[in-house]
Amino acid sequence: MDEILNIDFEKLQSDILELLANKKYSAIRNIFLEMNPADIAEIMNELPLSNLPVLYRLLPKELAADTFVEMDSDVQTHLISSFSDTELHDILDEIYLDDTVDIIEEMPANVVKRILANSDADTRAMINKILQYPEDSAGSIMTVEYVSLRKNMTVDEAINRIRRTGIDKETIYTCYVTDYHRTLLGVVTAKDLLLSESDKLIEDIMETNVISVHTHTDKEDVAQMFSRYDFMVIPVVDDEDRLVGIVTVDDAIDVIEEEATEDIEKMAAINPSDKPYLQASVWETFLHRIPWLLLLMISAIFTSIIITGFEDALSSTIILSACMPMLMDTGGNCGGQASVTIIRALSLGDVVFKDIFKIIWKELRVGVLCGIVLAVVNFIKMMIQYPDAGFSVKIVVSLSLFLAIVVAKLIGCVLPLLADKIGFDPAVMSSPFITTIVDALSLLIYFALAVVIMHIPVT
Amino acid sequence: MDEILNIDFEKLQSDILELLANKKYSAIRNIFLEMNPADIAEIMNELPLSNLPVLYRLLPKELAADTFVEMDSDVQTHLISSFSDTELHDILDEIYLDDTVDIIEEMPANVVKRILANSDADTRAMINKILQYPEDSAGSIMTVEYVSLRKNMTVDEAINRIRRTGIDKETIYTCYVTDYHRTLLGVVTAKDLLLSESDKLIEDIMETNVISVHTHTDKEDVAQMFSRYDFMVIPVVDDEDRLVGIVTVDDAIDVIEEEATEDIEKMAAINPSDKPYLQASVWETFLHRIPWLLLLMISAIFTSIIITGFEDALSSTIILSACMPMLMDTGGNCGGQASVTIIRALSLGDVVFKDIFKIIWKELRVGVLCGIVLAVVNFIKMMIQYPDAGFSVKIVVSLSLFLAIVVAKLIGCVLPLLADKIGFDPAVMSSPFITTIVDALSLLIYFALAVVIMHIPVT
Repeated sequence: MDEILNIDFEKLQSDILELLANKKYSAIRNIFLEMNPADIAEIMNELPLSNLPVLYRLLPKELAADTFVEMDSDVQTHLISSFSDTELHDILDEIYLDDTVDIIEEMPANVVKRILANSDADTRAMINKILQYPEDSAGSIMTVEYVSLRKNMTVDEAINRIRRTGIDKETIYTCYVTDYHRTLLGVVTAKDLLLSESDKLIEDIMETNVISVHTHTDKEDVAQMFSRYDFMVIPVVDDEDRLVGIVTVDDAIDVIEEEATEDIEKMAAINPSDKPYLQASVWETFLHRIPWLLLLMISAIFTSIIITGFEDALSSTIILSACMPMLMDTGGNCGGQASVTIIRALSLGDVVFKDIFKIIWKELRVGVLCGIVLAVVNFIKMMIQYPDAGFSVKIVVSLSLFLAIVVAKLIGCVLPLLADKIGFDPAVMSSPFITTIVDALSLLIYFALAVVIMHIPVT
Repeated sequence: MDEILNIDFEKLQSDILELLANKKYSAIRNIFLEMNPADIAEIMNELPLSNLPVLYRLLPKELAADTFVEMDSDVQTHLISSFSDTELHDILDEIYLDDTVDIIEEMPANVVKRILANSDADTRAMINKILQYPEDSAGSIMTVEYVSLRKNMTVDEAINRIRRTGIDKETIYTCYVTDYHRTLLGVVTAKDLLLSESDKLIEDIMETNVISVHTHTDKEDVAQMFSRYDFMVIPVVDDEDRLVGIVTVDDAIDVIEEEATEDIEKMAAINPSDKPYLQASVWETFLHRIPWLLLLMISAIFTSIIITGFEDALSSTIILSACMPMLMDTGGNCGGQASVTIIRALSLGDVVFKDIFKIIWKELRVGVLCGIVLAVVNFIKMMIQYPDAGFSVKIVVSLSLFLAIVVAKLIGCVLPLLADKIGFDPAVMSSPFITTIVDALSLLIYFALAVVIMHIPVT
């Protein structure tokens, strides 16, 4: 990314520290003025905390607020502790409400108190309300700063209202038409306004089929609606259908990325973390990974019981032991492919539970194809690797492989669908989990075939 | 998703088919007029192809074009074949250029020819140009329909220009200031225009620090810039810094979702497909999955060689065989956790190659923690499961487990970083791949410890 952005962050950081040591403040200010808030924040995140208050005060008010929003939360906490109450008030004044709420959610309690104490009564009430929505709901990511219009305004009056009140709104490009009870009547875009006659009435140009979400709608579903309908913004209504806020596309992108990361982590048997990798401590990373490892390790007890039960089969030829890892890994890989595909398709909305028979039928055919190819290749491989071994052991391994693959594909597609149906997150049916189940089943098939085909007595 | 959208697609489909049978066309039209293009397309995708031309002609021109863009490509192909040249021309006229290019990329050659033949000469030239950009580049997803302004215009003149030309532009909210050579000078938002005095000059209100991308920039990097900077749109320039197009946030969202799906597929050892699960044929799904399965199965030859080499160790006690799957699975899971975390962090830009020592140091500590916990639990588990077995075999299994976990964590984090460094996609260093390597290493550690601690002669 750094190369794409064409910014050498390390050089900039050392330049700034040098200028700071020489008290060349206006030179630093000029560097910052050329930069985007996200980039300034990236530099400040890495600088010694003691230098931050001085550097931060070099930024003009609006740029300072935009930069603050982009910083790591420990840096924000440090900066807030260095602010006077007036400074804190000024910053909070510039920040959009949804960003303030995001910041508050990461802060220690004493800092939250100071932030609330330095907000206006109105803002404080709104922050408190947003904080009460469930963590993953539309309400928790919405902002309340939108442009509202009345249906009997003319286009000109509407444009004047935007000119008067637009400066503090997160977007002025989608305006909402409400009545005196704040019921959502329609939506008008700035494009509609600019392209319409100035004396037309809003009610004549507004779109009345407005797609909205509820304050309690899952934010993942909200994000999927942005991707489905190519929206820039979506209105959020309460139980009485009153407009209470809007979610903007930049927040939807964050949700889409977060959710993909969460899915990926769950698929690798990791409890999701909301911190970037390098910011999570070793202890946190350990705690997110160990529960699944423990559970999966302990469930391997089934495979060990199966193996112990077939001691005679295993001791009859070392080839049966030697092919065990190949059989289990291939089964695990096949099951993993199927489960990951279905989990992703579920979370993109490409498949739903009622497709289960279509899916099983498809995976069955894919499994048979994969099984035939792999079993034949394995048979040839064994002819080369063990030319002197009996025919029956090669048949046992190849046939087990075929059956294990078909079973793995079926289990891999069915379990995520069932998990989803009974209200669990399908991503929990990840490949490590499927692998553990498929391992035990493959070994059962393997030893059963060995007993039957190679005429080995069971212990 | 269906429940969130509050649309019962199956009922709607049967209602529409019934209305169609009774020739109640205006009732159907009224249903469609209340709906969003993406939803109409979803319904049409599932209806019998023979009914489509009639239904489609019920839509007013603009809605028809928006719906067309959202349809599956086989439905689009069928519809185009039923269009007269005039109808095709009208539709193409309504569609934004980047969508036309998306459609063309999925069509058979004869349909592409008809589309090009029914476009204006200008459009045809632009389509051909966009089709020449590399598949994953900014150029391939951009649109050329943007608003351009001159720096010596007044705010009023700029607004008038938007009113005159805006109707055909994909966005009018971000306008680009260019000179007569199309060199990008600055950017002005509709918000700036609406909130400024009408006689101000554009050059006095434009932002001159414009972040742009090159036509050949990877579209994944472009999408990451949207997420980093909260952009709605980003300008695309050519080698001579001339503005050639824009990428809008809706296309960036598609790229972000596609890339996450691709990463997830690669992590499960599947070659990425660009079709939704149910649309891909069994044969396609098979072809995307089999290469990695074959490669991984054949690489299991190393584990079988290792096992064959330690026949004596294995035959000394069944417990060594019985614990093999647990050891290999746990190693594979630990390596998978590390690799998946690093692959995702790389693709979100959270880590870069130069962090390698920080990452190794962190994974080493996490590995030691996980290793201690799992080895101790395993030791206790073995005391219960095999009370009569010797002390040395329990030590061999637990110590191997500890070492395998630490090695797995290190390999899991290093390989994706190395792959990225030498220009490969790090997602290829997926958990199945890591598992295969870790399997062989764990078994080597396992048998070596068995030989040393249990005094078993090597074959």
